[in-house]
Amino acid sequence: MEIPKGTVVCERFVSRALEGNLPGDPHVRNLYLYLPPGYDRGSDRYPVAWCLSGFTGRGRMLLNDNPWSPGIADRMDALLADGRAKPIILALPDCFTHVGGSQYVNSPALGRYEDHVIEELVPFVDSRLRTLPAPEHRGVIGKSSGGYGALVLGMRHPEMFGALVSHSGDLLFEYCYKRDFGPALRAIRTGGGVAAWLQKFRSSPRKRHEDIMALNIIAMAAAYSPNVGAPPAFCDFPFDLETGAIDENVWKRWLAWDPLYLVDRHAAGLKKLRLLYLDCGREDELYLELGARCFVRRLRELGIAHEYDEFEDGHMNVSYRMDVSLPKLSHALAR
Amino acid sequence: MEIPKGTVVCERFVSRALEGNLPGDPHVRNLYLYLPPGYDRGSDRYPVAWCLSGFTGRGRMLLNDNPWSPGIADRMDALLADGRAKPIILALPDCFTHVGGSQYVNSPALGRYEDHVIEELVPFVDSRLRTLPAPEHRGVIGKSSGGYGALVLGMRHPEMFGALVSHSGDLLFEYCYKRDFGPALRAIRTGGGVAAWLQKFRSSPRKRHEDIMALNIIAMAAAYSPNVGAPPAFCDFPFDLETGAIDENVWKRWLAWDPLYLVDRHAAGLKKLRLLYLDCGREDELYLELGARCFVRRLRELGIAHEYDEFEDGHMNVSYRMDVSLPKLSHALAR
Amino acid sequence: MEIPKGTVVCERFVSRALEGNLPGDPHVRNLYLYLPPGYDRGSDRYPVAWCLSGFTGRGRMLLNDNPWSPGIADRMDALLADGRAKPIILALPDCFTHVGGSQYVNSPALGRYEDHVIEELVPFVDSRLRTLPAPEHRGVIGKSSGGYGALVLGMRHPEMFGALVSHSGDLLFEYCYKRDFGPALRAIRTGGGVAAWLQKFRSSPRKRHEDIMALNIIAMAAAYSPNVGAPPAFCDFPFDLETGAIDENVWKRWLAWDPLYLVDRHAAGLKKLRLLYLDCGREDELYLELGARCFVRRLRELGIAHEYDEFEDGHMNVSYRMDVSLPKLSHALAR
Amino acid sequence: MEIPKGTVVCERFVSRALEGNLPGDPHVRNLYLYLPPGYDRGSDRYPVAWCLSGFTGRGRMLLNDNPWSPGIADRMDALLADGRAKPIILALPDCFTHVGGSQYVNSPALGRYEDHVIEELVPFVDSRLRTLPAPEHRGVIGKSSGGYGALVLGMRHPEMFGALVSHSGDLLFEYCYKRDFGPALRAIRTGGGVAAWLQKFRSSPRKRHEDIMALNIIAMAAAYSPNVGAPPAFCDFPFDLETGAIDENVWKRWLAWDPLYLVDRHAAGLKKLRLLYLDCGREDELYLELGARCFVRRLRELGIAHEYDEFEDGHMNVSYRMDVSLPKLSHALAR
Repeated sequence: MEIPKGTVVCERFVSRALEGNLPGDPHVRNLYLYLPPGYDRGSDRYPVAWCLSGFTGRGRMLLNDNPWSPGIADRMDALLADGRAKPIILALPDCFTHVGGSQYVNSPALGRYEDHVIEELVPFVDSRLRTLPAPEHRGVIGKSSGGYGALVLGMRHPEMFGALVSHSGDLLFEYCYKRDFGPALRAIRTGGGVAAWLQKFRSSPRKRHEDIMALNIIAMAAAYSPNVGAPPAFCDFPFDLETGAIDENVWKRWLAWDPLYLVDRHAAGLKKLRLLYLDCGREDELYLELGARCFVRRLRELGIAHEYDEFEDGHMNVSYRMDVSLPKLSHALAR
Repeated sequence: MEIPKGTVVCERFVSRALEGNLPGDPHVRNLYLYLPPGYDRGSDRYPVAWCLSGFTGRGRMLLNDNPWSPGIADRMDALLADGRAKPIILALPDCFTHVGGSQYVNSPALGRYEDHVIEELVPFVDSRLRTLPAPEHRGVIGKSSGGYGALVLGMRHPEMFGALVSHSGDLLFEYCYKRDFGPALRAIRTGGGVAAWLQKFRSSPRKRHEDIMALNIIAMAAAYSPNVGAPPAFCDFPFDLETGAIDENVWKRWLAWDPLYLVDRHAAGLKKLRLLYLDCGREDELYLELGARCFVRRLRELGIAHEYDEFEDGHMNVSYRMDVSLPKLSHALAR
Repeated sequence: MEIPKGTVVCERFVSRALEGNLPGDPHVRNLYLYLPPGYDRGSDRYPVAWCLSGFTGRGRMLLNDNPWSPGIADRMDALLADGRAKPIILALPDCFTHVGGSQYVNSPALGRYEDHVIEELVPFVDSRLRTLPAPEHRGVIGKSSGGYGALVLGMRHPEMFGALVSHSGDLLFEYCYKRDFGPALRAIRTGGGVAAWLQKFRSSPRKRHEDIMALNIIAMAAAYSPNVGAPPAFCDFPFDLETGAIDENVWKRWLAWDPLYLVDRHAAGLKKLRLLYLDCGREDELYLELGARCFVRRLRELGIAHEYDEFEDGHMNVSYRMDVSLPKLSHALAR
Repeated sequence: MEIPKGTVVCERFVSRALEGNLPGDPHVRNLYLYLPPGYDRGSDRYPVAWCLSGFTGRGRMLLNDNPWSPGIADRMDALLADGRAKPIILALPDCFTHVGGSQYVNSPALGRYEDHVIEELVPFVDSRLRTLPAPEHRGVIGKSSGGYGALVLGMRHPEMFGALVSHSGDLLFEYCYKRDFGPALRAIRTGGGVAAWLQKFRSSPRKRHEDIMALNIIAMAAAYSPNVGAPPAFCDFPFDLETGAIDENVWKRWLAWDPLYLVDRHAAGLKKLRLLYLDCGREDELYLELGARCFVRRLRELGIAHEYDEFEDGHMNVSYRMDVSLPKLSHALAR
């Protein structure tokens, strides 16, 4: 029994926003696009969901196959086939960097990834595909760092997005990042400092879990507290690399990027959303359910409509939750 | 800077060998195929490497993307671009089952997966694509259960394969499976028996590591000690499900499938191979480096030419080792 | 509110059985003894429970303090004070060796520890203290390797013991030891072989969990498959130190010491016991509950009376279970 | 070969300071005392080292036996026998509470443990034993929470102590406690709140590692942010028990007890110490080496003489380091 299948296409995009970025990451990127079944046969226009991948990922990975956990294209096909979702275009950008990610923000240490998505890719897709090119038909969704990206881009660009989904998004930095300062410090120290550590990390064919933990802290510093005068990671660390002592000034720069503290200023925009959906696992290894609860509490206080689910699981292997969010999102964005 | 890219195509194959299989798994399967750059422009014939995925996997997963560990197609493109490998076709069959895999053998509990590959897919590919349809130009390669499949298919079908690569393949069952009997027994017992456990496993959207460990033992029993009269897994267990006591008769049925004990009888065929390459990590979580060492020792005693590498890593995230094996394989299979 | 306290005394014992032992361990040992409250004021005679410590332990450790898990003397005081137990003497021998233990057996690689307990210490205590010097008033109890010792000494010496308690005792060697062959092989191999590994282990002030795991396999080999011609551990290993291949001849020597296979021959003696009590945790890290279930099944088949409890815990921190066993034991041994 | 042995005596002390404590913990406590070999035969006066046990411990546990890691009395005997240390009295107080410890401070939620040690036990020992009753002959030493106690009592009572040793002492609360807020919150939440959780913890015969982690946070709150109006733990938590949001006011009360921030005000007293010795493991599971480095850096800035060692180990099983500290301490305190 075959079900109708959408089409996945790959566009090669030359980015002005990323050109000449400091670390020398590519400025030509693949943009994978999922077109729903029937797209090629009709003249309908479709909503677009911008799907942001997590740390160490890029858009194409959302298509990765697994017999028990299909990629986002197969998942969307199945949701459409059984009538749970409505047809939408999925856009899967690549915002990967030499340190594993960009948090979808503009940073002199990494590149202008926010601009890349908002100013380049969104108009590009609207010009190339039969989209419904209006905020009420454009959504943003992601998991983990992608959920963070969805929150930040969604809050900062109410003119662009009418629906926002954050699965286990980075929130309450106090918990989700600080607990890795110690391990990161140790890894970097043992590795001979940031430069030596990064060099070794890059030359090693196999990336270990502990290394990714340290890399994550470096990447967050590059995103939240960049310092173009501090190669090779071009960032300030929020802790002393020898004693761990918190540098409160740098830490404040990080907190300025915590969605929990951004929300107040963006309340008006968030109120206009057709959908604001968050979820988290109750055993999230990064304790992100705490951030989600804080955020949801603040949403309530600010009178911002939202939906929130907690699942009996953790941070990994939770893409099955898109079977909940993609239907919601596709309905919210429908004409 | 672009490099030439091969083409990935997906063939839908209706299998007679799998039709009517006992557990009711699909008998129509996707066969993904990688055609090297230039295939569509010329009339050359190419060697074929049959690439077998590991437990819980299927051929398509070998294409999965990861920025630091590209899929097999991207990897092959890169190896070709820098001249390390020679052009070959890669064939990625799907031998997944309701219990996570088939070990690429014929089993009444699962289906005739050996026949599916050997009698159906190989001729199909040779008839459809411009292959070099001779054993000296046909190889088999895989990792973990796929490395096991490569060993077993390679040994049992010297008329089919001229080169064999096993990355961390299942060997020395005494170590690689027995240590999971206890955990599997506990999981199944706590879950209320095999039937209840399987039902719960299937209905759960998220598969946990402990569950996969138990499933693995069930799958191996279905492959090595099938019993069509024992639903729902249609197998005998090599241990008492209450006390763990080893059932030596069932265990002997398992050992009959251990490549370590199959090798003697297949020595003549193995000697004809153009390439027999094995590797393993020194910290393999399943202690497969012990099996590899035993196997290599026996190869030496039998005078069978081979190459063997040990790496400073474990069982997971080792696909970078294909940058070693694919060049060897492509040269061995070349005209 | 004070409760009556027993007295702990320490006897210094010069052992003929241990004198000149091959590894040069001390033959003068401390025997700690607990005398129940009132012992010094009356002329009553008391039963004696021989309490065997686990691997890496010695009798004195059973007295170790912990606010939530008192030592055996404090525990006995409390059980007596609230009437749950009857007064008994506790004898706590030291059968520690250079490899962490002796399994309470005679081994040319370690010393004659079975003789030390049975032929030396039991008569010594009966001659020095007001004991009830008859098997029906003498018991043996232990946990882990001490539980093993209780099983082995109890089975082999029905003329000595009238009650036997084994908490999480070593049983079903197939599970409890074999799973550590791989880790032990790796540790020893990485450490440069048995001699180098042992030397490093001894000189290191801190013993790590992985080291104890490897040491355990060495100690079991010294106990079960001694070889006085093979310094420094004076034993044969049941597996090849390079490939892990099981040496079935050596393994058979081990199995000859598995209580599971000793039980048949000692059935007559076991039937005479006033108490045969076993327990285990359902999540025992060494999977000893499987051995316990096998053993209990065999006891049932042989018609040997026994009691068996399973607890919802693991292998460690389970001395609270003595609050169950000591009352049973003291009543069984009472006049 | 016997070495001279000191004597261990146990004094039963009725404490006014602890009488009527809020949680109802005992106010009659055992004070274990080690008297060096020769104490009973001469008329010499001896220095006294106050030895503080860690969380979940009490003085008597410092005497616990282990063949590879002897108790403090045996250790002292050995250090004296080979001339590394000079004779001192060791005093081992019991400051255990219903939540596992007291941090050796006065807290209305727990009791006046600082007063108990300083105002009651020190004078008691000086009146009962042949001590050198002057600060230059009195030291304080401990590990973990005992190391914390040594730092706090040492800093706050320069009139009492002339030498201070802190092994892996609690420092830099930002790291050593905050990382357990998430786990503690989860445990308490799953357990049905503080009262239900505490009740279940108490009634469970077996204390698991995760439970101790949660208990630790409760105990620290009882020590650092007591609130007699908030039964059953009589404390304020520095985080919201639902969202984890940090309560900065409560957190400030904690930080007021961080030795790192106490040190400035006590610099004068610390400069008078004959010995200020700290150590830590480079892989301390609580990241206490970071606190130690911060503290040592501050000592240097303040011009306070000290010694500091880092070891290649973690937080557990490090009592071998007393073979370094006890000799230093005994020499510093000697006449």
